[in-house]
Amino acid sequence: MGLKTPEEYRESLRDGRVTYIVGERVADVTRHPWFETAIANAMEDYEYEDPEVRAVRTYETESGAAAHRVFQVPRTPEDLEKRVKLTEVTSITTAVSAVLMALYNIKDQVAQVNGQYAENIERVYRHCRDNDLRAAQVITDAKGDRSRRPVEQDDPDLYMRIVERSKDGIVVRGAKLHITAASLVHELTVMPTKAMGAGEEQYSVSFSVPVATPGVKIINRGYARPGRSRMDYPLSARHNAPEGFVIFDDVFVPWERVFLAGEHQLAGVLAHSLGLWERIGGLIGMVRRSRMMVGVAELLAEYNGIAKAGHIQEKIGELIFYAEGLRMALETAVRSYKTTATGMVYPDPMAVNVGKYFGAANFHLMVRHLHDISGGLVVTLPTEADFRNPELTAYLEKYLHTRPEVKVEDRMKLYNLIRDFSADTYGGWELVTTVQAGGGLAAQRIVVLREYDLEAAKELAREEAGIAETRRPARI
Amino acid sequence: MGLKTPEEYRESLRDGRVTYIVGERVADVTRHPWFETAIANAMEDYEYEDPEVRAVRTYETESGAAAHRVFQVPRTPEDLEKRVKLTEVTSITTAVSAVLMALYNIKDQVAQVNGQYAENIERVYRHCRDNDLRAAQVITDAKGDRSRRPVEQDDPDLYMRIVERSKDGIVVRGAKLHITAASLVHELTVMPTKAMGAGEEQYSVSFSVPVATPGVKIINRGYARPGRSRMDYPLSARHNAPEGFVIFDDVFVPWERVFLAGEHQLAGVLAHSLGLWERIGGLIGMVRRSRMMVGVAELLAEYNGIAKAGHIQEKIGELIFYAEGLRMALETAVRSYKTTATGMVYPDPMAVNVGKYFGAANFHLMVRHLHDISGGLVVTLPTEADFRNPELTAYLEKYLHTRPEVKVEDRMKLYNLIRDFSADTYGGWELVTTVQAGGGLAAQRIVVLREYDLEAAKELAREEAGIAETRRPARI
Amino acid sequence: MGLKTPEEYRESLRDGRVTYIVGERVADVTRHPWFETAIANAMEDYEYEDPEVRAVRTYETESGAAAHRVFQVPRTPEDLEKRVKLTEVTSITTAVSAVLMALYNIKDQVAQVNGQYAENIERVYRHCRDNDLRAAQVITDAKGDRSRRPVEQDDPDLYMRIVERSKDGIVVRGAKLHITAASLVHELTVMPTKAMGAGEEQYSVSFSVPVATPGVKIINRGYARPGRSRMDYPLSARHNAPEGFVIFDDVFVPWERVFLAGEHQLAGVLAHSLGLWERIGGLIGMVRRSRMMVGVAELLAEYNGIAKAGHIQEKIGELIFYAEGLRMALETAVRSYKTTATGMVYPDPMAVNVGKYFGAANFHLMVRHLHDISGGLVVTLPTEADFRNPELTAYLEKYLHTRPEVKVEDRMKLYNLIRDFSADTYGGWELVTTVQAGGGLAAQRIVVLREYDLEAAKELAREEAGIAETRRPARI
Amino acid sequence: MGLKTPEEYRESLRDGRVTYIVGERVADVTRHPWFETAIANAMEDYEYEDPEVRAVRTYETESGAAAHRVFQVPRTPEDLEKRVKLTEVTSITTAVSAVLMALYNIKDQVAQVNGQYAENIERVYRHCRDNDLRAAQVITDAKGDRSRRPVEQDDPDLYMRIVERSKDGIVVRGAKLHITAASLVHELTVMPTKAMGAGEEQYSVSFSVPVATPGVKIINRGYARPGRSRMDYPLSARHNAPEGFVIFDDVFVPWERVFLAGEHQLAGVLAHSLGLWERIGGLIGMVRRSRMMVGVAELLAEYNGIAKAGHIQEKIGELIFYAEGLRMALETAVRSYKTTATGMVYPDPMAVNVGKYFGAANFHLMVRHLHDISGGLVVTLPTEADFRNPELTAYLEKYLHTRPEVKVEDRMKLYNLIRDFSADTYGGWELVTTVQAGGGLAAQRIVVLREYDLEAAKELAREEAGIAETRRPARI
Repeated sequence: MGLKTPEEYRESLRDGRVTYIVGERVADVTRHPWFETAIANAMEDYEYEDPEVRAVRTYETESGAAAHRVFQVPRTPEDLEKRVKLTEVTSITTAVSAVLMALYNIKDQVAQVNGQYAENIERVYRHCRDNDLRAAQVITDAKGDRSRRPVEQDDPDLYMRIVERSKDGIVVRGAKLHITAASLVHELTVMPTKAMGAGEEQYSVSFSVPVATPGVKIINRGYARPGRSRMDYPLSARHNAPEGFVIFDDVFVPWERVFLAGEHQLAGVLAHSLGLWERIGGLIGMVRRSRMMVGVAELLAEYNGIAKAGHIQEKIGELIFYAEGLRMALETAVRSYKTTATGMVYPDPMAVNVGKYFGAANFHLMVRHLHDISGGLVVTLPTEADFRNPELTAYLEKYLHTRPEVKVEDRMKLYNLIRDFSADTYGGWELVTTVQAGGGLAAQRIVVLREYDLEAAKELAREEAGIAETRRPARI
Repeated sequence: MGLKTPEEYRESLRDGRVTYIVGERVADVTRHPWFETAIANAMEDYEYEDPEVRAVRTYETESGAAAHRVFQVPRTPEDLEKRVKLTEVTSITTAVSAVLMALYNIKDQVAQVNGQYAENIERVYRHCRDNDLRAAQVITDAKGDRSRRPVEQDDPDLYMRIVERSKDGIVVRGAKLHITAASLVHELTVMPTKAMGAGEEQYSVSFSVPVATPGVKIINRGYARPGRSRMDYPLSARHNAPEGFVIFDDVFVPWERVFLAGEHQLAGVLAHSLGLWERIGGLIGMVRRSRMMVGVAELLAEYNGIAKAGHIQEKIGELIFYAEGLRMALETAVRSYKTTATGMVYPDPMAVNVGKYFGAANFHLMVRHLHDISGGLVVTLPTEADFRNPELTAYLEKYLHTRPEVKVEDRMKLYNLIRDFSADTYGGWELVTTVQAGGGLAAQRIVVLREYDLEAAKELAREEAGIAETRRPARI
Repeated sequence: MGLKTPEEYRESLRDGRVTYIVGERVADVTRHPWFETAIANAMEDYEYEDPEVRAVRTYETESGAAAHRVFQVPRTPEDLEKRVKLTEVTSITTAVSAVLMALYNIKDQVAQVNGQYAENIERVYRHCRDNDLRAAQVITDAKGDRSRRPVEQDDPDLYMRIVERSKDGIVVRGAKLHITAASLVHELTVMPTKAMGAGEEQYSVSFSVPVATPGVKIINRGYARPGRSRMDYPLSARHNAPEGFVIFDDVFVPWERVFLAGEHQLAGVLAHSLGLWERIGGLIGMVRRSRMMVGVAELLAEYNGIAKAGHIQEKIGELIFYAEGLRMALETAVRSYKTTATGMVYPDPMAVNVGKYFGAANFHLMVRHLHDISGGLVVTLPTEADFRNPELTAYLEKYLHTRPEVKVEDRMKLYNLIRDFSADTYGGWELVTTVQAGGGLAAQRIVVLREYDLEAAKELAREEAGIAETRRPARI
Repeated sequence: MGLKTPEEYRESLRDGRVTYIVGERVADVTRHPWFETAIANAMEDYEYEDPEVRAVRTYETESGAAAHRVFQVPRTPEDLEKRVKLTEVTSITTAVSAVLMALYNIKDQVAQVNGQYAENIERVYRHCRDNDLRAAQVITDAKGDRSRRPVEQDDPDLYMRIVERSKDGIVVRGAKLHITAASLVHELTVMPTKAMGAGEEQYSVSFSVPVATPGVKIINRGYARPGRSRMDYPLSARHNAPEGFVIFDDVFVPWERVFLAGEHQLAGVLAHSLGLWERIGGLIGMVRRSRMMVGVAELLAEYNGIAKAGHIQEKIGELIFYAEGLRMALETAVRSYKTTATGMVYPDPMAVNVGKYFGAANFHLMVRHLHDISGGLVVTLPTEADFRNPELTAYLEKYLHTRPEVKVEDRMKLYNLIRDFSADTYGGWELVTTVQAGGGLAAQRIVVLREYDLEAAKELAREEAGIAETRRPARI
């Protein structure tokens, strides 16, 4: 019980979990190069020594114990701001653990249908919180033919389902896709992929199991091969969380870890509990990233002596409009917080979704601006290995020189940052996940259509059209 | 002294002012049909009877007297919010009078150069405030050939200039363009059009004169002919403020009304004092207008039975993203307020400019979405006169019917609103002023480039590129 | 029989037709100011005296007689080019008469279902061609609630239908909307609004009747009030074709003028026969208009002395990309012509639809660029009446001066062209019809999805993915 | 003399050239894995056995010998079409050799300044053509601080320059960047990077030298590591041409290989000779690639069962508009060909530049559409190694199944194609080069501004504004 040290965290991953990378069965994730960077990042979130850091990273639970703040359900606007602050500096492995907090918060709704499920949520939540464990958000099903319902698929397992029930628990079968950090956490917290209807009881299933549970197998995919030069890959040599394709091959789940097993009316509630928190995480990332893009563009322009050119300033201006638009959305989301019936404070869904959509819909154009500023050297720059080769160093120092105050090595790093960020494997991952994480552009559109006060807008239209009397006395 | 009644305001315009409309010299603006609507709107801002309205519309000056809130320099965030609230419901004639408040607030800067000017500002400000007068923002010069400086023009009067100085005052000559409501206010408060340099002393001039001052002539242009049907023109039959082309034909200005006469270093200070307030006014208008656009689109879709169609929902979704993006910018502008050295509270210029740019840059596409939803009837719908013709009424009732709950007259009004707003004379005025008011797209870009914390963004880029050490201890 | 003179055309309109404008019953369209401009334009197309003009405007029919080329079914690529050339210089009244040519060309398909209908098409086509008559394209129904089929509407007449059949003919009832030039042609050639299915026989109806047929009533809507100054309204004072809301109040149509009366399988054939020709007409207009926009922007920039500024050149560049994109689409449409089974040569539908979509989807942004270049004077410029007022002329000459080579009157005309074209009543009509004429953006998308060779594209994808063997031997 | 066999080509690369890859000196490019794919591709262009292929790939020179068609200067429209056809199926190594044809064609202009240079061009051109050699386009200088001219740089060598002249030749020093296929060709044909002025004589230099010339050193950069799975990397495992950073370290060039050495007025002529041919090459690539994108999107939608969904069809429609816009530009470029004074037929620069701009400016949005259709699996899909691991094959076959007709292996290949093409190292290279190759978006804008008939457009504007008399008699 209690907070773990970084080393305790690392040790805790040596539990016999079945995991693969590039076709190879990984005997011990803590010793495999593909996971080295991600584990190092995850370990940082277990640093609690420094008092200042501890103040940010932990909170006091109702029993007075210290727990990682990721488990804290925000009850006040200040809590919400602290949580946002925390998220800005948290590794992805910890960030995904918000699933437990989101789940904990819908406990009362679940209790109305089945008190045992609610107790199970409470128990698993406390178990993870009090033992400083991490849990992956396990949601997206394989889905097969998207035009057919789960029961209509060629194979009934294309959506995860209960294949057996006994007095001790359930047996589940299926695969879950895009599971970030699955191999680096302790729990796999499984949610239904979407709302289910009558006849889809077997697909209405939610639970949490340790990663090393028999029958669980994870196929990992990373965007960054291990052993990358930090000069050539400034971002992906430092950040690299593998995504898991997680197979549940007739996995037994004891009843005390089941949150849903057949009550289809709850499937949607559980599926949607996560969306908002996923998206605000995405928005926070976009705010930071967009600010970096402005800095990169300006710095490169200065390095190359074009910072004062009109067309460069126009593009940097566009990058600033983008970055500031995102910042305003995030600030509005936090300041215009809402409160649930159970007293949880959460960000304004409208602002989160508008911000996320704005960020995703315009990202590709911003990348174009960045490339338009930077030129072809982004993809043709010699590598660190060339730069370190004594036969070549002097040539590169000579010919990549631009201005006295610019070190060639720094200039190379900056080009490498642009490439790594927007024109390489990691960059491709950014391009795709910017659109897809938290549910594609359409997902945001659905939310804003649902949340927007259309009736008030229609009333304004009626007043302006002269269909309804204007209700403002003397224009006020 | 003191607040005026609506009738007193109207009477006060009968002062012999020299003003023209469509080539005709207007003997009395209060009796000319082209000005009827605008004066009626302006009169509403002089309604102070209702206590609720009075509370919104007035404030208490340091002497304890009541004055119109448009003159109140915001000192607290609450003042700022009240001002924004006021602006939402104020006619344009009053709104432009913010020029006096903006001017008043830079008084101390002016005093450092010439104490007499500062006293003059104070005096004119109090005169207007205490007599409940209105003042137009008189800025844009004729400018001639844009590639030449004022002194290089073919005619030295293409920028307003001082042609004579005496012990009593100055004589000015020039024309000022796009002066909203010039014929309907009491004072013409003249600013330099931009910063001036050495050698441009004669062009560094600012002052305020009554509209009826000898030598002042105003050529008006309106977007709405008088006598329009409110059914055919739901907006422009109710709102119509003429723009003035104001000629200063050797106008004498006594020294006590001069704010600048030669000290070129102040020209920029005065010119820029207004920008922010003009733009936040524009942003407030955009927020309201964009919400109306959402309502119009949704209402029309419902009238026509297409509200559930996927492509319609997609377009309405885009309109909502637009409306909410603007709302977030305005809220951020107010909540992230700044404070000047003299204690004036003002909106965050970054948020105002980002919002204004976002609103202007995307407006045309939003109009396209609106027209894409509404169809050709926007421009081919029969007029109210057709509808009222007994030979035709029944046909229009019959063939414009869509659903039992939709009155044909309402459906016609809604189409007319779309046309009036986006596809008619007034709509054209909206298209142009959305881009141009407060200074074109480039003006916002210049501000955000100046205001953005580029150094912090560069530092972030340096950290991510590995050029600088990351300064976050343990990722916090 | 034979070609008419301009005067004969005008006289032919005095036939007792029932037509309204702004609520007023028009006794004689040839003497009513609202129709003056449009009739003058239509008369020009009846000028056959000049041999050069005659060569362009007429062709020789199979009987050796001269007929207006608008009736010529293109049989060779040269015919097609001549037709495109003709369309560039034809008034709208003549352009819409292409309906008869389009109809004539599907005669054989119609004959397979009912020989009598085909004969009727032949007869009416020859009647119009040989008497130099004009015919409006009468298609769009009132449609009521768009979510319901014709028979499900609250009023069965919301789609035009046959209400009675007798041995002499049929009686039809309904309204047709957006009928360009309806009051200025001789025939109303009515088409079904879309494909119809079983049970919709009463709605499967097509025919042609003279405008003055009893029961036909036209409510006109124009975008330009009569009597406009050509200086203030350079475009709409010269072009102004009213759109008709055409009511068929139990109109009797003799069998010899019926093209369809119940055979629902033909409804779609007739409805679609027009689309391509409407859209190529739209594309031709866009090509010309976009070239004008480039010229306007460049000329204004020169007038104002900003032609060399970087941001202006960028916007003019964008206008050129737009204009040239449209030109290329039109050229491709003509050069990649197709041929029907009956030997009619027609433009490549893919190119036409891609061009039309490109033109409509980007038009609003191009208008924004134009306004961004031109500034607020577009909407605040004094009128011709002001300019002609001797009290004001000198002031306007003085203050609207920019460069010695620019006449102020020309500069005013150019601003007026921009306003008239893009920010006034006519401009609004352009904004709407650019999107809506020929069927909205979605209509083009449907066509390209249908016409595009998706199988070939998929094959290429399969080859590149390594799913299929690449079929190119040695890369050729 | 004469055509080479593929093997002869490969052998010819073993000439002691000094070349590096990822920091390693390459002893023999023909045996180094990084060059294997590119050399295999280049060898295909030396296949002349098959008569059909030979007909496409060769032409007859004036002496009656067969030469590779890449050297043929187009003299007729048919030549031009054959060349475009050739380019569609030519490897990049051959494509770049067009530099010699472009150079050859400006020989007469060069002759007017210096006859010896023209003879040298003729000689080198014939040497390469008659020996079936390939030549890289060596243009872009290091450039240093972009705000300074060559002579103002901190190091005078930041633009390539002549450091010594003797009776035998010149000695040059400098670096050239982004030199595609530099290590895989026979000649480095060097051009000035831009027009030069008086005082920049030392920078006005052009010549051609064999790759193995002493002092020439090439640092290569590739986007695809060798040994990639063709299933995981469908594109980059098959196409991979390294870009060279080419250093000229005091390289001696004999006079007979010098094309320019000091006559600054020719620098621009040589620099611009290549642009058009580079860009039409880019356009041809875009046409093919965009067609592939449509196919990929449609195929994936079918695989996943969403091909009929409205929002998917909308995005595929957008991809088609993009693909067809590019196709129309290419067709127009060829059909509207121009002819030089020396009789060379070349594509319409306007169409090429409009097409290239359209393709580059919209590419990023098209990538977004593709990712929006395809979903997160693009970046999280397990690898071929996972698929081939017997422990995992059955799971992947089971859970990646969608429809009976879709093989899982094919579905994986298709996702991999999307990733490889748009979200991986190669995809990043595409993102950057789409914008940058042939000179950034601004380069196209400059060309269209120069080539467009602005005077005609202005005349049209004048006519429509009523400034000039319309010159069309009777509208024709």
